[in-house]
Order: sequence, then structure tokens, then C-alpha cells
Amino acid sequence: MFVFSLDENEDPVTGLERVVSFSNINAEERRQRRILSEQELAERQNAAFKDDDESALSARYESLDYEIVENQLYKAEENDPNHQQSLFQQSVNRWIVCLFIGIFTGCVAACIDITIYYSSRIKFHYMISNLLKLCEKQLDNGGGCVWMVEIAWICYNCGLVAISACLVLFVSPVAAASGIPQVKCFLNGVQIPGVVRLKTLLVKSFGVACSVGGGLSAGKEGPMIHSGAVIAAGISQGRCISFPIDFHIFKHFRNDREKRDFVSAGAAAGVAAAFGAPIGGVLFSLEEGASFWNQDLTWRMFFTAMISSFTVNLILSIFYGVSGFLSWTGLANFGVFENIEYNIWEIPIFLFIGVMGGILGALFNWISVRLLKFRRKYLTSRLQRLFECLLVAAVSAFTGFLTLFLVNDCQAVGVNPKLTELNKVLKFFCLWCRKGEYSAVANLFFQSPEESVKSLFHSPINSFRASTLLIFAVEYFILTLWTYGLSVPSGIFIPSLLTGAAWGRLVGIGVEYLFPNVTGVDPGKYALAGAAAQLGGIVRMTLSLTAIIMEATKDITFGLPIMLVLMISKWIGDIFNAGLYDSQIELNEVPLLGWNPPKMSRNILAERIMRKDVVAVEPVERVGRLMEILQTTRHHGFPVVDQINPPKENSEIPDYGHVKGLILRSQIITLLQNRTFSYDRNGERLVWGWKPIFLTDFTDRYPRYDNCLDKLELQPNDLNCWLDLRRYLHPHPHRVPLNASLQSVFTLFRGLGLRYLLVTDDENNVRGIITRKDIARFKEHRRSKKYSIREMFVSDFND
Amino acid sequence: MFVFSLDENEDPVTGLERVVSFSNINAEERRQRRILSEQELAERQNAAFKDDDESALSARYESLDYEIVENQLYKAEENDPNHQQSLFQQSVNRWIVCLFIGIFTGCVAACIDITIYYSSRIKFHYMISNLLKLCEKQLDNGGGCVWMVEIAWICYNCGLVAISACLVLFVSPVAAASGIPQVKCFLNGVQIPGVVRLKTLLVKSFGVACSVGGGLSAGKEGPMIHSGAVIAAGISQGRCISFPIDFHIFKHFRNDREKRDFVSAGAAAGVAAAFGAPIGGVLFSLEEGASFWNQDLTWRMFFTAMISSFTVNLILSIFYGVSGFLSWTGLANFGVFENIEYNIWEIPIFLFIGVMGGILGALFNWISVRLLKFRRKYLTSRLQRLFECLLVAAVSAFTGFLTLFLVNDCQAVGVNPKLTELNKVLKFFCLWCRKGEYSAVANLFFQSPEESVKSLFHSPINSFRASTLLIFAVEYFILTLWTYGLSVPSGIFIPSLLTGAAWGRLVGIGVEYLFPNVTGVDPGKYALAGAAAQLGGIVRMTLSLTAIIMEATKDITFGLPIMLVLMISKWIGDIFNAGLYDSQIELNEVPLLGWNPPKMSRNILAERIMRKDVVAVEPVERVGRLMEILQTTRHHGFPVVDQINPPKENSEIPDYGHVKGLILRSQIITLLQNRTFSYDRNGERLVWGWKPIFLTDFTDRYPRYDNCLDKLELQPNDLNCWLDLRRYLHPHPHRVPLNASLQSVFTLFRGLGLRYLLVTDDENNVRGIITRKDIARFKEHRRSKKYSIREMFVSDFND
Repeated sequence: MFVFSLDENEDPVTGLERVVSFSNINAEERRQRRILSEQELAERQNAAFKDDDESALSARYESLDYEIVENQLYKAEENDPNHQQSLFQQSVNRWIVCLFIGIFTGCVAACIDITIYYSSRIKFHYMISNLLKLCEKQLDNGGGCVWMVEIAWICYNCGLVAISACLVLFVSPVAAASGIPQVKCFLNGVQIPGVVRLKTLLVKSFGVACSVGGGLSAGKEGPMIHSGAVIAAGISQGRCISFPIDFHIFKHFRNDREKRDFVSAGAAAGVAAAFGAPIGGVLFSLEEGASFWNQDLTWRMFFTAMISSFTVNLILSIFYGVSGFLSWTGLANFGVFENIEYNIWEIPIFLFIGVMGGILGALFNWISVRLLKFRRKYLTSRLQRLFECLLVAAVSAFTGFLTLFLVNDCQAVGVNPKLTELNKVLKFFCLWCRKGEYSAVANLFFQSPEESVKSLFHSPINSFRASTLLIFAVEYFILTLWTYGLSVPSGIFIPSLLTGAAWGRLVGIGVEYLFPNVTGVDPGKYALAGAAAQLGGIVRMTLSLTAIIMEATKDITFGLPIMLVLMISKWIGDIFNAGLYDSQIELNEVPLLGWNPPKMSRNILAERIMRKDVVAVEPVERVGRLMEILQTTRHHGFPVVDQINPPKENSEIPDYGHVKGLILRSQIITLLQNRTFSYDRNGERLVWGWKPIFLTDFTDRYPRYDNCLDKLELQPNDLNCWLDLRRYLHPHPHRVPLNASLQSVFTLFRGLGLRYLLVTDDENNVRGIITRKDIARFKEHRRSKKYSIREMFVSDFND
Repeated sequence: MFVFSLDENEDPVTGLERVVSFSNINAEERRQRRILSEQELAERQNAAFKDDDESALSARYESLDYEIVENQLYKAEENDPNHQQSLFQQSVNRWIVCLFIGIFTGCVAACIDITIYYSSRIKFHYMISNLLKLCEKQLDNGGGCVWMVEIAWICYNCGLVAISACLVLFVSPVAAASGIPQVKCFLNGVQIPGVVRLKTLLVKSFGVACSVGGGLSAGKEGPMIHSGAVIAAGISQGRCISFPIDFHIFKHFRNDREKRDFVSAGAAAGVAAAFGAPIGGVLFSLEEGASFWNQDLTWRMFFTAMISSFTVNLILSIFYGVSGFLSWTGLANFGVFENIEYNIWEIPIFLFIGVMGGILGALFNWISVRLLKFRRKYLTSRLQRLFECLLVAAVSAFTGFLTLFLVNDCQAVGVNPKLTELNKVLKFFCLWCRKGEYSAVANLFFQSPEESVKSLFHSPINSFRASTLLIFAVEYFILTLWTYGLSVPSGIFIPSLLTGAAWGRLVGIGVEYLFPNVTGVDPGKYALAGAAAQLGGIVRMTLSLTAIIMEATKDITFGLPIMLVLMISKWIGDIFNAGLYDSQIELNEVPLLGWNPPKMSRNILAERIMRKDVVAVEPVERVGRLMEILQTTRHHGFPVVDQINPPKENSEIPDYGHVKGLILRSQIITLLQNRTFSYDRNGERLVWGWKPIFLTDFTDRYPRYDNCLDKLELQPNDLNCWLDLRRYLHPHPHRVPLNASLQSVFTLFRGLGLRYLLVTDDENNVRGIITRKDIARFKEHRRSKKYSIREMFVSDFND
């Protein structure tokens, strides 16, 4: 039905020919099969990569492993008299790690904010003010001076954006854009290369300060969430790979399972820092990522988010000179709605705003995906991408000035009591208006986006003309569209809120015009609804976004309309296309598993989903065959069976025996590394045994095992040794019969966070293996033309 | 280690001897085994029940089944050309059901509130006011009149409480107390008999109005949550069993899976209605119940909660004459904190409050459990229980008057600007003070608890004397303790908040006394922290409680301190004992599965957990054997195996073949019901076949199948027929090998919501079966003396 048509015989992971050797081939024959030289291997793997770029699921991504390998070592650990102590220590360590994640995430967020503050200070205090003084001396009001200011302004912005773009392009390309899709993939169980590296963090945090300081229509919130995730991954591992430092702590957390849990806490901390929304942060992590709801984990996430929010408040309260007052919540502080209520007759208006938001959001996503494809096709070199960034920076700055010239929206200072104390920015742009007036356009274009959102939410009724709002909304919509996907770190939250607030306020003015006799109409609440609708239409989050907006506005009263608006905008948006993050993930061919099994999947059985060309090993296996398997396949787990018989007729796959367990690639490599040698009389080395191995030995090189493969330096003699896997294999991997449906397989995968699922026949013989990619192939094809609107309307046919 | 020592050979479910018959016993022999008469069966079952009352897990509770039976009928449904249409219809219906759940829950909540309003109106307007007028005529101030008023007051309260208690004792005993533990069990997958019946709803909602109106230290919030759950279960089934009405709608939702999902939405709606906290409601359902986090389900829960909150606001806004203004949020409206901030030096004070809350909460739970045990042992008759309720009602009313006499805390009306307009209640009690003053004690004791909480939160600094607060806190703590667990519907939320607010305010006064020079100390914020701490220490919720309190106070600023307080109080409380709901659940021997697998469970293998005395059937089975199994066992699922061989030596259990599926008791009964007959020439009836059966036939009698068993009226001839189960069995039930650890079995059960898990050997032969009760037996023994404090401190050793 909605299934990718992939050739079933093709290996979706590598495209390599499978090397299968059988236990009944004698040792001599085996030895003659030479090990592939490194170069040959690299070539073959490159070829495999190239093939894969064409397929629907990219081979660049690997799965994370959430299952515990319950081998004999693991079980024996429990009998250790110190085990209770060690468990307690781990449990305490988890809290300590979370504490540090919270603190560091808060610090990074505060640093980003302070950097942006100083960058704008430099711009206004030193550059523009001085230029202005120069102007006043030389020229009368306006004229050439304006152009000078404008050019200086544009140059400064371009400079900052150039720094940001260079960092991304030349240091860490994965740090571009918001980072939320990447974090989402990681939480879903897909490893995106480089996404949680230290250099990504550095580029991301400094880069986003530059892009926001450089006046792009970009928010700092998405990058903060990504930063939180990187910090979590880094701290929990107790070491750094970019700079090879190992603190030799938290060794128990060096596995995918723990790392993923900490990253979810880090993402929550990022949201908490960005919006002062700890509950919203936890909900974000749950809604976007986690497939499980574990009370303890959720609680730690909450703690982390709380600490991060606390840290930001503390640092910023000190920075802004009100040290110790912690009620300062978050960076995206949208001010408090006072004494504003809503009535039941306003519900239809909120519904209308929701519909608008859904349509505009869908339009945004549609264009955005096309723009990304265009960039991928035509902007291939780094220089081109850098140039695009500079162009956008210049256009963004120019648009503001242009609008200022064209739209003459001067408002008396007295109209807006919140603006009685004009800040530096507005004072400068007062030049365009008469004395005692300020420019509403400047109020929107030249303040920080957060300040502009605040103005739109809380300014009194007549602070903005309808035309100003319309022009601003259209311009900002286009700028945001163009900015998102540039090679700079940039978030989508604040720009979307700003666009939405502008047209939401416009709706408010419309309502006031239509019902002039009704009191209590305040365009501010429609601006809030519009902001929610626009953002909801783009990212399609519901519960977490409601919590975030409520926490960021410190307001509960409007909870209900906000929810309503977000739901409607998601419904409407889903008719047309997927959310922005999901579209991007799909474009990158990531094997993400959705919330629900694909529709109409009852009659797709495990037999059809599974890959039949399994490479299995015996519980005691020759080193030579293991090496061969390691070097010629890129599988990460191998079923262990009690016997391997030659293939039956009409089949190329050997006839495997009963399931005895599952062994991971990383485990085999670690075992091979821990061999010891003796030397015979000629000084020739002999493998004679294996060192005693402990659980921690398996995590020492996490997550980079493959590097070690080349350093094994096995001699031909070594290859004849036998390796006993029985103590190390996972003795009871999950298995399903051949007639299990895709629906139940999906539920197992998603519910337990599996990486491998064995398929066995009636006698418990291994017949195939299912991995994440095999399931992801079957996801419904959103782009299919046949998709009826009715079918899309209700997104949860979870029959 | 921490394992219940249960005799392994004893059947923990029924204690019955197992009837196992083998396929190699000939048909004649089988026929001779007579079917048990109804009476005999009842006797045997009663005996089984009695045995079970002694065991650690009660047999009264059955598991819910979350797994989909993917049999051939189910798979064939997909090929139906109308299937897409039907899926869409189901999806739309889910939303419609949620809409109605929200509306009805809101209505019931509003009705409860309005009933309480009228009951207090009757008390004050008609009774007390008239008495007072009588007094003024006859006597001088005070004296005998006071006694008259007091007696009238006590009688009125006792009358209401008597109604409430009688309803519970004689109509629906399961409606007693808050109902949250029962809902929690249901969401966890345990069926508590009668918990979601209509009569429970009626008793609960009317009863709680009476108990709150009767002046007990009881809240209406817990019962509202239970009401939401009942409404959800009722509406989603499209029929009512208490009054046999069937609307013949929503037939697709007549299974445990859908029902459980709807009940979680209903519980969320209940919280939303009670506190005006839709997000808190969703979090409550997730934290207390759901083991899964499904985006679609969460979204529907959110929608339901929103609608319910909306409905309450709408009805109450109309009722209180401000129709249409929807900003009125919730029933437990604690007022808004204005311009109150907090500073970093106050954090230690909040920590102290958290510790206090933890200790007091643990004390509360400890006494409460002992009180429940005492009641169970000594208060066995209904009359005794009714008498206790009346006693508590009288004591509660008397305590207020006594305190009023003993504590002379009269405050000038001007001190508290919020009290300038004294309401009726306070005006009456002004009699005890001089003119222009009001009694602070009356302000606490004789208003509705919500109003008292509001007073404690928002009154200015000197509104209450320290001694008043102390006495009130102690008295209310004891009254709450005594009230909770009475045979009346009563919640614990508001009384706990009130107790906590009183001692929290006391702490605030202490702080003010210690640091007289610091400005900005407002006892209100400490009252809020104390309220959170006390409630958190008792119920041990974190995330959801934070959200609920934040939404109920409409305040985000104090989010951080509230979280902090709740965390600390949970940590401290967990050192001593479990939360109130968990203690109660444990006391009732419910096989609840916690969040994490039991500690030290790596070496407990499936072989040890499973029950070996499996009763399996063959794919085509004789009706006689099926009837025998149905009548002599109380199992609800039977493995289907390809052959059943006689037991090997040293074993009583037959030697089962390969797993072919699983068939449910309900399915067998439905199949037997759907047989058709023909008659031979002598008019003797012959079973000759089965009617065509559809999926909906299986759900028609949900959830009461066993009633039908007695009505089957099978003739001896019928028993020789063969029933082909192959089209109806679940062909790929989940299975684990003998060496699977408890840890992985637990994760499977919890993650997928299983009811049965087959244990197979290396050849895929059935060797045992694991049910919820088999796992629950292994839960850690909280009451064990050996529990070290350190071990308790960190509750999440999820190694």
C-alpha cells in the first residue's frame, strides 16, 4: 500500500555482497580466504555509501541500542558483594550528572544571551551612536547620514553572520539550523554522526549568538536545546572525544541506553533555559523524542530542567544587577498579560486564527522543503553557501530600512505607556518621526525579536497601524523562510512567534473594527493566539508548545484558547504536509520510527519484513571467521546459533539452528583486543588465551569501536584460534515467529527501543533478522499522490 | 532477596486443583467426566476466594488485556473494501467520545460544586440565620444561643454525612474515599470490580457533595477524578450495565485496550475540572497510570481535559452570573499571587519546608495505614462504619466551635483588605469578637476549605496569630487523618493543602520574626510552599502536582520553589514509607506493576517466575474438554499447541508441543454460544456447526462473558463435537525463552501492557506461562525490616 518499493534482495545497509562461511568448511580452506586489505575495504565501503545515497534510507545513520545485554558477566555482577553499593553509587551519579547538565546548559544559555547583549551594545553604543554624532555635526537631519548608518549597520551584520557561517561550513556542518530535528532523531534512537560532539556545541553556541546578533530572522531557542543535548552527552560520558580527555568517571554510563536518557534530560534543560519553562521542557523531550514514559527518568529530566532554568535566572539576575531575584524567568520573556479576559464569543475568532496558522504553517513547510532541495542541488560549494548567508544578512537589514522609509507609521510616545522610556534603539529611529513620536516600524524591525514580540503582545490598541502589521508579517515570513536552512545556527521559534503575533494583532484590529461597540477587545490576546498558531502550524507540537507558551508568558488564563489554537492549527496543517522537523528528517532519509505502526499493516508479516541473509556465528567460533565477518559486513549484531548447516536447495543462505543468543560487533572487537600472547622459541608470537574480561572493558572504547578493528594486527596463526562467546553473548534476545505482523513487530521495537529482533520458525531456528531500517522502509508514504484529504485529516488510525 | 515466599506449587489464583485432560484419553472416558453443577462450582470458587484472602495477592483482581488479538478475522478485516472508511470512522468516534467525556465530566464537577453551594446556603441562610434571629429576640449575646446554633450545626452536618455514608455502605462500597488508588490500578492494567460502574459514579458524586457540605475535612477533587474515569468508561462503551441500556454505538471500543485509553482521558478530565489544570491533568494520568507515552493518546487526553475545564468554566460563569467569561478557571481557585518575588536566600527555607512536608507526609501515611488496618479488623459491620462517620462529622464540627472558644484571635476587619466585604459566614462568627473585628479562627474553620486556603495564601502579614495557625494545623491534620478512609467519598488534596498552608504560613511568620529587617517576606509564599510540601509528602507526585499547583494558583513565578519543595518532600518521605495511594494499593493486595523491575532481579529467570501447570488446548479441540477447562479453571487465556503428549516421568504436567497461538476464555465462550443446531427424527437436538462469526460478535458481551457460560445448556451430545479454533486464536503471542531474566520479562510486560507471556524451551515447546500476578509476586518487600535507609533514599535503582 504505502510501502517503499525496495528490491528485496538488495541489502539496504551496505549493498555489499555477504560473506557467509560455514562451520563444515575445513580450517585450511578457511585460512586461504585472505583478509581484505584496508584499502580494499575502504573502497568497497565507499562504493556502498554511494549506492545508498540513492536509496530511501541513508546508510549514514546507525541505530542506538536501548536493550541491556544480560550476559553472564552482567548477571554475575549482581553476586558481587559490592553490587548494592555500586548500584547506589550509579543512582547518585545519575543525579549528579543531571545537576551538572542543568548547570552547564544554563551557563551556556546565559552566555549566548550575554554575547548577544554585548554585540547589540557594540552596534548601538559604539558604532551607531558615534556615527550619529558625526552626522549631527556634519549634516542636517536625514540625507546622506542615513545611508552611512545603513551601510555600517549592514556591514556589521554581515560580518557577524560571516563568522557564524564560516564556523558552520568549515568546522561543524551539523551545527547548522536549529538542531531540533537532529536531537529528535537521537532521542528516537538514531545516531546522527557528530551531533553530540563538543565542537558542535562550540560552533552552535557561538554561531547562534552571531546570527542573532547579526540581525537574521533567527531565534536562539532551538540551538539552546541542541546545546543542552550535547552537554548532556558530554558530561554523562565523563570524557571528550574532540579533545582526547578522559576523566575516568561515569564509566557505567558509557552505553547508548544511559546516553540517550541523559540527552533527553539535556534537551529538556535546553528548553527550560530558553523559555524559562521547565515543565514545557520535559513535555518537549517526551513529545518529540521518548517512546517510553518512565517516572524516574521523567523526574530526573524535570530536575535537570529546573536546575537549568534556575542557573539562567541566577546568572542573568547578577548580570542585570538585581542579583538574587530569581523570579526572572527565562530568556524569552514575553511579559505578563494583565487583567485581560476572554469571552465565549471570541472562541470562533481563536478558531479562525488556528485555521490561518495551520494554512500559513503548511505553506511555510512546503516552501521550506523546496528551498532545502534547491540548496542541496545548486548550492553545493561552501563559498556559495557563505555567499547566500551574507546575502540574507544584507537583505534582512535592508528590508528594515526600506520599510522604515516606505511606511510612515509614527506614533505619539504617550500612546504606549510601556514605551515612555524609549530605549537607545528606538531613540535613534525617532529621527524619522517628529519630536514626541516614535516609529512603530522601528519598534518592530530594529529591536531584539523578543522585545518586538513583547510590544505586539502588550502595546495598547492603537500602537500599530494595520498596514504596518501586514507588511511586517509578510516580510518577516519571507525572511524567516529564507533564513531557516542557511548554513548558520538559527532557530525557528521566535521568528515564527513574531510573524504570528503580527498577523494575530492584525486580526485583533479587524475584530475591533467589526465590533466597535464591544468592550474588552484587546489586540494583544489575538497577537498571542496568532503567535501560537503560526508556530504550531510550522512545528506541529501541541502539549509541549502549550506549556512552553504558558510558561513563557507566565500566564495560565489563556491556556485554553492557546490549546484550542494549537490543536486546530495542527489539524489543518496536517491536511497538507508534515511538520517542519519531520519534513526535514524525511528529506535526510533518517530511519525514524513514528508513534504508530504504519496503517494497513496487519497482513505484512515478519517473514516479509525480515532480512533473510543473516550472518550468524556459533557459540565457539574461529577467530578467522569472526575477522572475516567484521571486515566484510557492517552489521552490528550477529545471532548466535547452535549449528550452522550448509544451505538447502534453492537457497544461498545457510540453514541455521536454534537461537542461542546475540553477540554485538563491539563485543567481538573488545574480546579480540583482550587476547594475550606468548612467544615460541623462534620469537614467533602465538595467541594463547584471553585476559580476564570485565563489564567495564566493553564500554571503554564506546562509542568508537571500529577504529580499533584496524589496530588488531592479527597474525595468520591467530586466525586459527577459537573464541568462546558464551559468557559474553546476550542469551535471550527478543524473537518473533515468522507470522508476527508488522503491527506487533513495530510495537515491540518502539516500546522496548530494540535494535535487533530475531525471526524464528516453529522449531526456534533463526530464519531472519529485523532492524530499525527494515521497519522504517514500511512507513507510510506521505508524499504519495493517492493520499486523500480525509485520510490525512485524522492522523491516528492506530487500529 | 525481597521476594514473597509463596509456595511454588500452590496456585496463586484459585487454589483449585487443576483439571488437565489429554488428547490421548479417549472420547468415552472424557464424556464420563461430568460437568460440575452450578452449585458445586460456586462452592469451589468460594473456597478458592477464602484461601486467597490469606495470600499476598488477592484473587479478586483480574488483569486488563492491552494486546490486540491479531487473528485471521482481524487480519481479514483489512481486506474489506470498507475498512479504510471504518478506520476513519473509529478515529472520528474516538474524538467524539473524548468530547463527550470532557463535557460530562465538566457537568458532573459543576453539579457537585453547585450542590455544595446550595447545601452551605441552606445551612447559613435558612438555618443559622433564622436561629440567630431567634436568639437575638430571646437572649442577650452568646450564652444558650451559641449552644443551640452549635447543636443545629452539628445535626445538619451529621445528617448530610449520614446520607453520604449510607449511599456508600449500602449501594456502592467501592465509591468510598478518593478513588484515585482505584483509578491508578485500572490504568496500570488491573480490573477492580465495580470501579467504573454507573452506580459508583452516582454515589460518588452525590456522596462527595454531602460529605464536603457536611463539613468533613474532605476534598471534592479526588472523587471528581474518579468520576471522570467512570464517565469515560461509560461513554466509550456506548451502553450501561447498571441499567441495561445499549445504544449500539462505539462497538469497536468494547475491549480493555480502548477502554483503558479512554479512562486515562477521563481521569485527566477529572483533574482538569477540579483544578482548572488541563496540563496537570494529562501529567497526572501519565504519572499515575500510563506505562506508555503515545502522542495521539496524549493529545486526546489533552483535548478531553481542555473541554472539561472549559465546560466547568462555562457552567459556573453562568451560575455565578458572569455568563460567558471563561477566564474563571476551575473549582479549586486559589487566587492570584500579585507582585510577590523570591530571592536566592529563601531557597534554604523552601528546602526546610520540603523536609517538614516529607516527614509530616510520611507520618500521615504511617498512621493512615494503621488506621485502615484497625478499621478492617474491628469495624466490620455497616452500622459500626456508619457510626464512625457520624462521630467524625460531629467531632469535626465541634472542634471548630471549641477552638473558637479557646483561642481568642480577633483581627480588625481593616487589617485584611481582602476581607472588607465579610461574607455571611464570617459575619455570623463576628459575634465572638468586638465590633469591627472578625475571628481569624472562624476564617479558617467555618469557610469552605478552598476559601480558607485562599485566606492563608493571600492575607497580609498579621492576619493570623502564630498560635491560631499551630492549633489549626494540628487539629486539621488529625481530622484529615481520621476522615480519610471513612466510608464516605472524600478526597485528600484540599485538606492536605490546607494543613500545609497553615504550618507553611507559620514558618513564614517565623522567618519574619528571625529576619525582621528584610523586606519582601510574605508569609503567603511560605503558605504555598507548605501546602505543596504537605500534599507532596502524602501523595508523592512530582511533575503532575507541580503543574496542578501552578495552574490552580495561576502562577508561574513560584514554579521553581514548588518543584524544589515537592522533590525534597518526596525524597524525604520515600525514606520512611510509600505514598498514601501506593500504601493503600499494597494493603489491598493488588498486583500492581511498578515503574521499574524489582532490584536484584538479574538472576531470577523465567523458569522460576512462570507457572508450570499450564492448561493448553489443541488447535481443533473437543467441546467437552473446552467446557471442562472453562468450568474448572479461572484462567482467561490458554496457549494453543500443536500436540499434547502425556506427562513424562516425575512430572504431572503434560508434555506440550510447539506454540501455535493463544486463545482467550471469552473467545471460547463466544464460539460456543454461536453454535447452531439441527434436530434428528426423534426431535433430539444435534450440534451440527457454527454460525459465521464476525469480530464484533466477540465484543458483544464485553466485559461480562462468564455470565453466559451458565446459559450455554450443552447436551451430552454437544460435548463430542470438535471446535476449530484456528481462525480465532492469536497466532503469534509474545514468548520468552526459559533463561529470560525477570528484568526483561518485566520490561516486556510493562512496555507492551501484556496479560500473558508464554515461556518456551529451545525447541519452541510451551513450558510455562507468566501472568501479571506471577511478576507482582516478586516485587520488593517494602515492609521488610532489612531495608536500609540508604537503599530507600534513591528509589530508582533501575540497573
